[in-house]
Amino acid sequence: MLYADYNGSAPLLPSVKEYLHKRIDSDLFANPNALHSLGQKLKKGMEKCRGVIADSVGAYSDQIIFTSGSSEGVSTVLHSILEYTEKKIVITSPVEHVAVVKALSWYKEKRGIQVLMVEIDEDGVVNLDDLRTLLEKNKGNIAMVTIMASQNETGVIEPFEKMAKICRENDVCFFSDTTQLIGKADFHFEKSGMDYAVCSGHKIGALSGTGFIIAKDPTLIHPLIFGSTQENGLRGGTQHYLGIETLAIALSDFKEKGHKLKDLNLARLNFEKEIKRAFPKAVVIGEKAERLPGTTLIGYPGIHGQAVQIELESNDVFVTTSAACTDNQPETSVVLKAMGVTDDIGRGVIRISLSYSHGQKDYDLCSTALKNAYNKLIKIHSY
Amino acid sequence: MLYADYNGSAPLLPSVKEYLHKRIDSDLFANPNALHSLGQKLKKGMEKCRGVIADSVGAYSDQIIFTSGSSEGVSTVLHSILEYTEKKIVITSPVEHVAVVKALSWYKEKRGIQVLMVEIDEDGVVNLDDLRTLLEKNKGNIAMVTIMASQNETGVIEPFEKMAKICRENDVCFFSDTTQLIGKADFHFEKSGMDYAVCSGHKIGALSGTGFIIAKDPTLIHPLIFGSTQENGLRGGTQHYLGIETLAIALSDFKEKGHKLKDLNLARLNFEKEIKRAFPKAVVIGEKAERLPGTTLIGYPGIHGQAVQIELESNDVFVTTSAACTDNQPETSVVLKAMGVTDDIGRGVIRISLSYSHGQKDYDLCSTALKNAYNKLIKIHSY
Repeated sequence: MLYADYNGSAPLLPSVKEYLHKRIDSDLFANPNALHSLGQKLKKGMEKCRGVIADSVGAYSDQIIFTSGSSEGVSTVLHSILEYTEKKIVITSPVEHVAVVKALSWYKEKRGIQVLMVEIDEDGVVNLDDLRTLLEKNKGNIAMVTIMASQNETGVIEPFEKMAKICRENDVCFFSDTTQLIGKADFHFEKSGMDYAVCSGHKIGALSGTGFIIAKDPTLIHPLIFGSTQENGLRGGTQHYLGIETLAIALSDFKEKGHKLKDLNLARLNFEKEIKRAFPKAVVIGEKAERLPGTTLIGYPGIHGQAVQIELESNDVFVTTSAACTDNQPETSVVLKAMGVTDDIGRGVIRISLSYSHGQKDYDLCSTALKNAYNKLIKIHSY
Repeated sequence: MLYADYNGSAPLLPSVKEYLHKRIDSDLFANPNALHSLGQKLKKGMEKCRGVIADSVGAYSDQIIFTSGSSEGVSTVLHSILEYTEKKIVITSPVEHVAVVKALSWYKEKRGIQVLMVEIDEDGVVNLDDLRTLLEKNKGNIAMVTIMASQNETGVIEPFEKMAKICRENDVCFFSDTTQLIGKADFHFEKSGMDYAVCSGHKIGALSGTGFIIAKDPTLIHPLIFGSTQENGLRGGTQHYLGIETLAIALSDFKEKGHKLKDLNLARLNFEKEIKRAFPKAVVIGEKAERLPGTTLIGYPGIHGQAVQIELESNDVFVTTSAACTDNQPETSVVLKAMGVTDDIGRGVIRISLSYSHGQKDYDLCSTALKNAYNKLIKIHSY
């Protein structure tokens, strides 16, 4: 079996599995905020994990606020800014994850926030000149810029360091949804220049239901989930300490093996070339842009993505047609539409997303399976 | 070792541990919202768990909305009501968990909500006549009543069915924080008459970072965490499916063994009697009220709770001095102050909280350890 939906969710890492087997048999289960020694032991462990995590993403421990995952992270960051400002404009991009899109819709309807879209090119890459223009034009009234670091469907990496710099020059805070970047490409929070970033554990092989916000100035975070003094009062609720422990393991694993991304990237590019050589009509979305080492979104005109997905699955290769959360809509995704992708391609894409643990032999498998699928489906054209 | 801080957090149940060992070695890790068969398999499993959970709490499957735990549950319910009403009054009690208290403070400050406190007696039990009076006096302008089902520090069970009935008669919606009730006492959502209830997995021996809201009418829930179509669009973010699976196991375990609560209750009452016989000055908080079968909050005038806690710990009995989340404040808790408990007792309490898996022999252990602690500390009086 080749599971190739890492952008949807990553399976537990072998090192996480191994850890959990031992961990489960321990007696160390308690409330990490309790005064007894079990609680204190758990707290110490949790703080050690916070340090490991902070270190692995180029941040300080007190900049890490644990959450249940990126959707909570996104909602918390937007809440922290938009509920506490008089400024009415948010600049975003048309390729954001639905968590950002829905949150902004809410603030638009409920708080009168005005949402401005930065221009993107046909690969979905933000036009930096346009970002600069929007910032200058609306000076003094911009609450924040929220533009993702890498796109979950296409894998396209946005020029986040440059965007952060432009925002800083205009004295506007910059939040970048890094859910698909952390653990999938190089990332260093401090160097990135971002004000806020987020991570989801289940995207990097840790337990689900865990994640964190990175905040340059954590005192600017306001709790979305109310509670006691957990997370310095910034996020209520007993921490998912087991999840946090696996986050530290997963990010350590990435730190150790992340150098393999280079090979992954080469293998992916070879794979894409090979498919295009065999099927000149095939289209790799975002092809000219810098992309995540392990992500390919590919379509063939007139062949339905779901048909390809099913064919691949019959060969034990598991992919999706777009973002997991919108997978059951057999239409060109909002993101692809914004990039100007037409329906004949847009309805036909599949996403292959792998991790740094994969390499050439996995792409060889993908290649064989995808060629078989295309050869079969071209004869019967889905639509 | 006797871990006696189940109200703070319950260790993983043996049945949960056993399940996890097998589960971790499976290949079934994916996004439950993905279209491929792995995702669909996970989704099916998750929906099966939803059914098991719903059944065990006397609700329908579509009334269960998965969250990261009760703090999120509380925040979501209050958000769903208070952001979508013109009514300005919330009725609550002075013994609520800090998650409710902090949320209400926010709505007071940010949305001009007026918070009215219902009277309680010296055991912390809500005065039903006062609740009725408050409801009638403020007819037409009450957004909701939010009063907990059982108190986390004292274990006192509020007359929640009667409160629900009074609210219904006054056409006001009733949310009851059931975090310390579900899995610790009998509970049937439909029979309770509540409009909303919440549960935290880590309080009942499931994984941390998981929980759920029960909503009589789920269409009235509005997402606090934005995302896609997960949880019918009511809660964004990939579900913590592994946590959800353990929730189903924990609630099944309770369904099977919950009958043991009777014995637990008897053992607790015997234990309390015995301590009071040996130390007539000892005070059991909320003594005259109906309480959770496994919760005792007990103090001895002039002996510091933390000193008792440390003594007990040296005998391998782990208790807390109050709620875990406020454990590091060596003062009479807000809840006890509201009940009129004076500092000489309030600063001296410890909370012993056990589960349906415990019985007489555990209380015998507590009894011996507590007697030793009191005998030792009486001689040196902490304050």
